[in-house]
Amino acid sequence: MRHLKIIYFFACLLFSLAVSGQKHPGIMITGEQVPALRAGVNRYPLLKRSYREIKAAADAAIAQPVTVPVPKDGGGGVTHEQHKKNYTGILNCGIVYQLTGNKKYADYVKELLLQYAAKYESWPLHPARKNNKESGRIFWQSLNDFVWQVYTIQGYDLVYDAIDPKDREEIEAHLFLPILQFFTGHCAYIFNSIHNHGTWCLAAVGLTGYVLNKPEYVQMALKGSKLDGKSGYWAQLDQLFSPDGYYAEGPYYQRYALFPFLIFAKAIQNHQPRLHVFEYRNKLLAKAINSMLQCTYTNGAIFPLNDAIKDKTSETWELVYGVDIAYSDINNSNDLLDVAQQQGRVIVSDAGLKVAKAVYEKKATPFKYVSEWLSDGADGKAGGLGILRDGPNTDQQCVVLKATTQGMGHGHFDRLNLLYYDNGTEVFSDYGAARFLNIESKGGGGYLPENNSWAKQTVAHNTLVVDRVSDFKGSLEQAQATHPDLVYFNAKPGLQVMSAEEKNAYEGVVLNRVTALITIPELKKPLLLDVFTALSNGEHQYDLPFWYNGQLVDASFQFKAFAGELKPMGDKFGYQHIWLNAAAALNKEAGSITFLNKNRFYTTHFTSENPLTVNFVTTGANDPAMNLTTSRAFMLSRKSSGNATLVSITETHGVTDPVYETVTGAVPAISGVTLINNSEGKKTIVFWVNGKKEYRVTINYNDKNNFINLK
Amino acid sequence: MRHLKIIYFFACLLFSLAVSGQKHPGIMITGEQVPALRAGVNRYPLLKRSYREIKAAADAAIAQPVTVPVPKDGGGGVTHEQHKKNYTGILNCGIVYQLTGNKKYADYVKELLLQYAAKYESWPLHPARKNNKESGRIFWQSLNDFVWQVYTIQGYDLVYDAIDPKDREEIEAHLFLPILQFFTGHCAYIFNSIHNHGTWCLAAVGLTGYVLNKPEYVQMALKGSKLDGKSGYWAQLDQLFSPDGYYAEGPYYQRYALFPFLIFAKAIQNHQPRLHVFEYRNKLLAKAINSMLQCTYTNGAIFPLNDAIKDKTSETWELVYGVDIAYSDINNSNDLLDVAQQQGRVIVSDAGLKVAKAVYEKKATPFKYVSEWLSDGADGKAGGLGILRDGPNTDQQCVVLKATTQGMGHGHFDRLNLLYYDNGTEVFSDYGAARFLNIESKGGGGYLPENNSWAKQTVAHNTLVVDRVSDFKGSLEQAQATHPDLVYFNAKPGLQVMSAEEKNAYEGVVLNRVTALITIPELKKPLLLDVFTALSNGEHQYDLPFWYNGQLVDASFQFKAFAGELKPMGDKFGYQHIWLNAAAALNKEAGSITFLNKNRFYTTHFTSENPLTVNFVTTGANDPAMNLTTSRAFMLSRKSSGNATLVSITETHGVTDPVYETVTGAVPAISGVTLINNSEGKKTIVFWVNGKKEYRVTINYNDKNNFINLK
Repeated sequence: MRHLKIIYFFACLLFSLAVSGQKHPGIMITGEQVPALRAGVNRYPLLKRSYREIKAAADAAIAQPVTVPVPKDGGGGVTHEQHKKNYTGILNCGIVYQLTGNKKYADYVKELLLQYAAKYESWPLHPARKNNKESGRIFWQSLNDFVWQVYTIQGYDLVYDAIDPKDREEIEAHLFLPILQFFTGHCAYIFNSIHNHGTWCLAAVGLTGYVLNKPEYVQMALKGSKLDGKSGYWAQLDQLFSPDGYYAEGPYYQRYALFPFLIFAKAIQNHQPRLHVFEYRNKLLAKAINSMLQCTYTNGAIFPLNDAIKDKTSETWELVYGVDIAYSDINNSNDLLDVAQQQGRVIVSDAGLKVAKAVYEKKATPFKYVSEWLSDGADGKAGGLGILRDGPNTDQQCVVLKATTQGMGHGHFDRLNLLYYDNGTEVFSDYGAARFLNIESKGGGGYLPENNSWAKQTVAHNTLVVDRVSDFKGSLEQAQATHPDLVYFNAKPGLQVMSAEEKNAYEGVVLNRVTALITIPELKKPLLLDVFTALSNGEHQYDLPFWYNGQLVDASFQFKAFAGELKPMGDKFGYQHIWLNAAAALNKEAGSITFLNKNRFYTTHFTSENPLTVNFVTTGANDPAMNLTTSRAFMLSRKSSGNATLVSITETHGVTDPVYETVTGAVPAISGVTLINNSEGKKTIVFWVNGKKEYRVTINYNDKNNFINLK
Repeated sequence: MRHLKIIYFFACLLFSLAVSGQKHPGIMITGEQVPALRAGVNRYPLLKRSYREIKAAADAAIAQPVTVPVPKDGGGGVTHEQHKKNYTGILNCGIVYQLTGNKKYADYVKELLLQYAAKYESWPLHPARKNNKESGRIFWQSLNDFVWQVYTIQGYDLVYDAIDPKDREEIEAHLFLPILQFFTGHCAYIFNSIHNHGTWCLAAVGLTGYVLNKPEYVQMALKGSKLDGKSGYWAQLDQLFSPDGYYAEGPYYQRYALFPFLIFAKAIQNHQPRLHVFEYRNKLLAKAINSMLQCTYTNGAIFPLNDAIKDKTSETWELVYGVDIAYSDINNSNDLLDVAQQQGRVIVSDAGLKVAKAVYEKKATPFKYVSEWLSDGADGKAGGLGILRDGPNTDQQCVVLKATTQGMGHGHFDRLNLLYYDNGTEVFSDYGAARFLNIESKGGGGYLPENNSWAKQTVAHNTLVVDRVSDFKGSLEQAQATHPDLVYFNAKPGLQVMSAEEKNAYEGVVLNRVTALITIPELKKPLLLDVFTALSNGEHQYDLPFWYNGQLVDASFQFKAFAGELKPMGDKFGYQHIWLNAAAALNKEAGSITFLNKNRFYTTHFTSENPLTVNFVTTGANDPAMNLTTSRAFMLSRKSSGNATLVSITETHGVTDPVYETVTGAVPAISGVTLINNSEGKKTIVFWVNGKKEYRVTINYNDKNNFINLK
């Protein structure tokens, strides 16, 4: 590995000299493919549809007067949206120019760029900036400026030959060169950071370097400002991804970062094929795309871990790029075409042409979702993300165990968090980020105060909270310093299991979670077994919330919701944002809760060493601006002066059919859940099916050869 | 009209004598159509798919042992669901027997019926009954027994010829005759009622009369126990429907009642065609089906007025029957085929064959949704339901004004209630019923206590509440005695308006609502104008809630949600079930609230004679069993010692695109909403578009020739 890196380092030095005599266009569309692309947009439905969309957008853009406003508004505001419109207009018109040869589209791009060139140098840091360091000049955040340039430079490359040299000189001298200087100068801190903002910045610089034939900027993009390889593209590929292609900030930001990683890779491949960028680090980019797709559920939803906007699916543009480039340039596996079909669009580009052609030729096969452990950390040893799946893509159970590193500033304090999907929908869900993306009236479209006070806190997740305090007391610095560890992972069909351990989140408490999908012949769907243990000598309060989707319909115990008054459950670490609806102290060790979600029943049977209290809670307290959306949880709670084990078995059963007005299987099959042989090294969970058949699941924590067995 | 009735009365007497020499089968499938049907299930996709479903269900049924348990459980319980399974099994096997000629399906029906015949007479009233009067013997409610028989007798008719006469005698003597006696004897009160339970009861009796060739029971079904025409089928058709085909209990129960109305009609048509049942009362049944379909939104959702389960759509079986019978027997309008396509199934029957064939021949045209006033009351003069629509079926605005009669026991206290749909979804919605249909753990699957204490109360609807008391103080008897009145209806494109008046709901207060869809050239979508007036000399508290779907994103005024404690808004008339989240007393007459629903923005601009208080509320207080689902409203409130006018203009604007991460049109175009020329007879509402163009809408309450104008 280290050797490989050194070889790459010298390879870069060597081939950098070969960057010269640029041909335009040379990024997503290359000149030689234009004839095939022109034929393809009339032939292959996916490409045709995608092109039609772009053509319509380009025509809408040129129908409007060229508008380059002085930057003024924050995210979602008028000037913000106008500058966003401009960069998509530039790219769309560039594409349409190549496909039609109609010069009016190139002229529009030229006009816009000349106006920017006339003004850009006079724009200081953005007036709506939050701090100087991260300020852009066109946008309130430099990140948006980087994105602007990644789009714009592609559009410029596409119309390059249609702009006369004098105008090109004007645009390059007064817009692109000042931008390069701003990105590598004022923004050097970000340019050299190992972070998605850094990726966007260096991709903008590198692409611009290629298009303007400025190899020195390409070199900086590849190897950092100092050309020492401690930052830049290769360093980011080394450090931000695990060997499995998992991205340190989590799937939501992986999606976002993939886009500049891939576009820049495509440009490197076109301009410096001998760098073999797609081969780098055992085809890391291919793994990154695959692991990204594996971090989605069958409905396309990206696992909403860390700061994630929840309506993101695999239909986002970033994943359209990912799938198309993966298929065309790295690994033309036909199951990627399944995703492309779901996306319903391709990039109008060389890569998109290949995908659309293959789909047209009916090569698509169902996307291969797998159960796997995605290691985290540059060396793959800093915990990871466990994913278990069962069933066909049309009705899949999927369980996710988050035992990754913190994920930097966008990370949540959710060690050993669990997500559960079934029947095409979320069952145990994650709040994601507290943010209304680009909706200016809501905190300028950025993260809301409740993102810190609620969404990041441990109690907002399906994991254990000790003493009603968040992991690491909510300290990012401390959380970033350590990571959970993989204990065991085995995706053996019928008895899939994963386990991870967290020793640092709480002083004096070691947390372990074992999560399994257990198939038993009496039931159609596997059971979700979840065993959470806290090893400690001290006395602690343990709360394990399950943020469920759906409507509560039954419980094995009596409870009475507070009728005339609601109070927050606490005053800090997120508890101040939860209304306590009901608290039921059970008088026996076992109990169950049934809820109905999308016409299917779910019963969570639970037990512990001592009777639990079940708290029913709803988000919304201490939220003066009503920024929070409504989520509901049942929370298993208890005090313990020694080790504590919280066991649950969630059973999927029955169906309600609103068309036929029938209900079947409303009563769960599992009963008598008991914890026996309970020691630090071994636990046995007993349960009954249909009151007749007894099953015993034994977990041997210290025996990797016999970690779990079912009898 | 009266003459027509008398003629029908004699016609019935006359033709009743002609009921003889039955041929089997003779209800939904008639013997002569069987060859065509057998060919059709292999040819027409809709019929093929529908038959495949029925065949699979029939095969699943006969694979199970014949099970006829002693009745024990309430709705959703084991015996309840088994008896439901049995009647669908009987009907499905009957159909499959006719289509395959395979005697095993007929044998299954015979076995089941012989078992029922062996036991039925020994079953007393159901042990889980709520009261004797409405108890069934197979089910806890006689209603379910009626439904059981409507299905079962059809299945029996289908296999009649395959059962030997001795067994038939057994079944008829010990099952069907005792059932006829039970329905017309113990259940006579229901049999003779003018109510949907009565419809099911008489349809069961009438169908059984035809199949068993017992004309005396057919006569009773048509004309009531006493054969005097004061009850029975004709009386129900006269009294339960308005001349426009609107059903007194509202759309949800219309759907339910249509089913027995139509099946019995089909049997009458087959056995006594000279009764011309489909021509009765100016083709009332056709109007009833059409008005039912007009009481849906473009997503298929049935307007959830009165006690309605909200996931009901036009895909329900009852409407499959409605559409197929309407198309085949009454009015073969090709836009009905559009609905059939959405339903994705047809009845495997003579009628379904015609529909599937026509769909196969590509005759379908988009369903014609119209703006219309559906009168209520047998004479059409007891108020009604106003519906305004604008735009294509793919993106339609739809506004509903409920000014109907109370609708008997399932009616809500929601005089002048408003529903608003747009963009394929609910914008201002109705809670519907508080009920988890057939989910036994929730109140036995029946109506929950909160249906009375919450769902029926005025404040649960989008209408004015006076002094925080429900219409008629929640008295059904008083509410049933009077009705609101139509003031004006005009569906002129560009300026559609409806107005109704309610004089009786509150003593000393006359309520009027004017609701309009106003098209102005600057905006793509019409504005929803709503002017609610309360005329009174006394001092009153007025609350006008808007139960909105989506997430609040902006308001023109400062507000601060209660952070550390929530209290219910009141202690009765539904107010005890709402948590008051925030209360903002405005300091000027006008204000606005913006919310985001399914990627589209809605801004409600409002004004009144004096500054309003805006209350933000959420359901869920005083709900110990957590039976309520979460709904949110903003409520415009004020006190007034004279007349009060609450004006709102709801504007649809902008779009968020989660794929492209763009937001456009987040800022509303309307501003400066003011109420001028405010008198009892005339009001002018002024508003500005884009701050530039002024519009004035004037309502002349007493001038039908110039009721509303826009300048």
